[in-house]
This record gives sequence, structure tokens and C-alpha cells, in this order.
Amino acid sequence: MTLSPTPRTRLGREKQRAVFDRAELHAVLDAGLVCHLGVIVDGCPMVVPTGYGRVGETLYVHGSTGARSLRAAAGGSVCVTVTHLDGMVLARSVFNHSVNYRSAMVYGTARLVEDPEEKLAGLRALTEQLAPGQWDYARRPNRKELAATALLALPLDEASVKVRQGPPEDEPEDYALPVWSGVLPLVTRWGAPEPDPLLEHAAQVPPHIAGRA
Amino acid sequence: MTLSPTPRTRLGREKQRAVFDRAELHAVLDAGLVCHLGVIVDGCPMVVPTGYGRVGETLYVHGSTGARSLRAAAGGSVCVTVTHLDGMVLARSVFNHSVNYRSAMVYGTARLVEDPEEKLAGLRALTEQLAPGQWDYARRPNRKELAATALLALPLDEASVKVRQGPPEDEPEDYALPVWSGVLPLVTRWGAPEPDPLLEHAAQVPPHIAGRA
Repeated sequence: MTLSPTPRTRLGREKQRAVFDRAELHAVLDAGLVCHLGVIVDGCPMVVPTGYGRVGETLYVHGSTGARSLRAAAGGSVCVTVTHLDGMVLARSVFNHSVNYRSAMVYGTARLVEDPEEKLAGLRALTEQLAPGQWDYARRPNRKELAATALLALPLDEASVKVRQGPPEDEPEDYALPVWSGVLPLVTRWGAPEPDPLLEHAAQVPPHIAGRA
Repeated sequence: MTLSPTPRTRLGREKQRAVFDRAELHAVLDAGLVCHLGVIVDGCPMVVPTGYGRVGETLYVHGSTGARSLRAAAGGSVCVTVTHLDGMVLARSVFNHSVNYRSAMVYGTARLVEDPEEKLAGLRALTEQLAPGQWDYARRPNRKELAATALLALPLDEASVKVRQGPPEDEPEDYALPVWSGVLPLVTRWGAPEPDPLLEHAAQVPPHIAGRA
């Protein structure tokens, strides 16, 4: 299934890096942990890192009912960007240096989620995105906590995906230079779990957490 | 030296996570690889991942002369956010789940760098931020390449830093729950260098690259 390009998702440059495939969009979103939410506050852009989750073709973005960025986003135009940095592309020339990455940008009007069932489903997706297995393991939100949590919904209608992978692309005349070139991969992994010093019960790290590291 | 709070950098919530220290701002910026640049294009926010570098109290952000985001940013209001994700904070309740992170947000009006000397210094900072040692090792930009590269300057006048570290903070009544809690650290490191398949010369990985992995 393809994503229909709009003027702003039709990439103006580096067209070869554009991906118009819905499965690729889902893959980039599903592999992330936090997004960068862009909103307009008092006429100026504001970019806030925050958690998110996906349910089908809807992206849910986390906020607090008190946050200015969230008040500005609800009902307003937003851009949500998820970026994975996969490595440094070290070319023979400084100009052709690049990064290997996967990124998704989603544009649209954010809707404040008010329906209790949708809110629970969105929060579940968001929790599972950051910490798979925790929704069923930890204590679920009570009514007071749900009221203190704000959730934005954004349809995956208008989005673009950009991917750059592989070795450097140098100018033809630069290949003769005695300069090492290639990719320095960036690897992100989970470290060993660090127990809360106040942990009294459940000293054993459960498999859904231990299995991630 | 402290950062003087303005209405938008004075954090509306989670005040205990605010850091008003210029050294801390520099540390968060200097430890990053890419930023998320927020601009307004046709009245809507747009959030683009891109490279950056710092020279003293000026942040330089990379762009192409052809990119819409850059045309919108030059002379316009921008927000540059750098985020480091350090770990998942797994609490006893879903509500108290969090992430350990360091993030910096810089607000201001971006200036297109036109002075050739400043442009070279900014590009050097940007290159060294992503790939230390490469400015002196790879072929430097020629006149044509410099003309094809756009650079934005943003003063570090209005900025905020947020940091969250340490174990979960649960509700008093939740400490009795039989739920493991703690932090799952996120570790980012460099992998083994992958030589360009077209590499003919300089087969040896130079120390400034090999030493990073």
C-alpha cells in the first residue's frame, strides 16, 4: 500500500531517499522509542521529545494535561518525526559525508483523545512501544491517573519516510585519494537492568525485561 | 553561568527536571550527533533531523540550499532540540513509567551564514560533531561545494535543558506490589568500521576512526 504524496511529503530533494510504502512507514515508527513532536506555540515552533505508540493507522502521542506543547497541539497542526541513526558515512570528501538513517515524518491535525476506551488503547500502545510487556505486568492507570494523562491522536494520512543506507558516494575524482572511507555503524542496545534500590519484592527481573537486554 | 529563563524556557511542569546551567547546555549539545530542527512552513510545523555543531555560544545547523525547511528557517523562528535517551524507567505502575534522558531546546531566529570564514568554521564544527578528526583527514569542501551547502546560525541565548536520571518514583502505596522496578539502560556505541567496497587506497582504518569503536 503506498502513501499518496502531498506537496509537503513529496520530497524536494534527495528524492532517491524517499520511500512511499506504508509498511516501511509502520516499520520505522514501530522500531522507535521516542518521537519529536513539533507544534506552534505563540507563533513559534516548539520541538518536544515524547513517547508515542501506533494502533493501526493512528499514532498516539503522550502528553501531560498541563504541558503547553500539548495544549498547543490539541486541535492544531503538528509534525511528528521519528529518527533512527544507523551510522556515520565517512566519505573521501567532507562534502559527501552523510549519516545512515531511517526517519518518518507525520503531518496532520492532532485530536485530543477523550473516549475512555480509545484512551486506554492508545496508552497501552504507547506503554508497549517503550516497554513491551509492562502494560500487563505493572499496575494499570486508575481513574485519577487517566485524567492527568493527555493523549493526542494523529492519523497516518500524510507522512513521508526517508532512508539512507550503504557506503559513501564520492565524486569520481576522489576515489584515487588515499583516504579511508566507509561506514561507522551506530549500535543501540539495552544494558543490564538496574534494580530500584527501594525494591523489596520481586527481586527477580521478569523475563520480558531481562530478555530485552 | 546561568541561562536566564524566558516565558517559554521556564518549564511549566516537571520543574525539578529543569537545568539552568550553561555548562550543562553545552554538555548536552556537545554529546549529540543529530538535532531535530523545528520550523514553520506554510503555517504548519515541520521537524527535520539534521547535523549541527557548536562554536562558543553559536549553534550551526546544516541544510541544503534547496531544502524547503532551510528556506523557511533562514530569518525565521526555529526550535532546535537535541535529545539523549539514556534508559527506560520501569515503575510499579504504568503511570509512573518514564525515560531517563537529557535534552536541550534552543529557541531563536536563525540567520543564514554568508561570511565565508564563518561558514568554514561552522561547517568544521558540524563535521567534527558527527565525525571527529575528519575535517583534517578528508578532502575539504571546494568553492562549488561550499556554495551548495547552507548553514544556519542560532545564538544560544534562549535555551532550556531537561534531565531525568535515576530510579522510578512510585506512589507510596505501590511499593508493596510484587512488581520488579528499576531502570533498563540504553547504551549507544560505535560498531566495527565497514570499509567502502570501492576502497582502493588507505585500506587501514585510521586511528581517529578505529579509536571511536
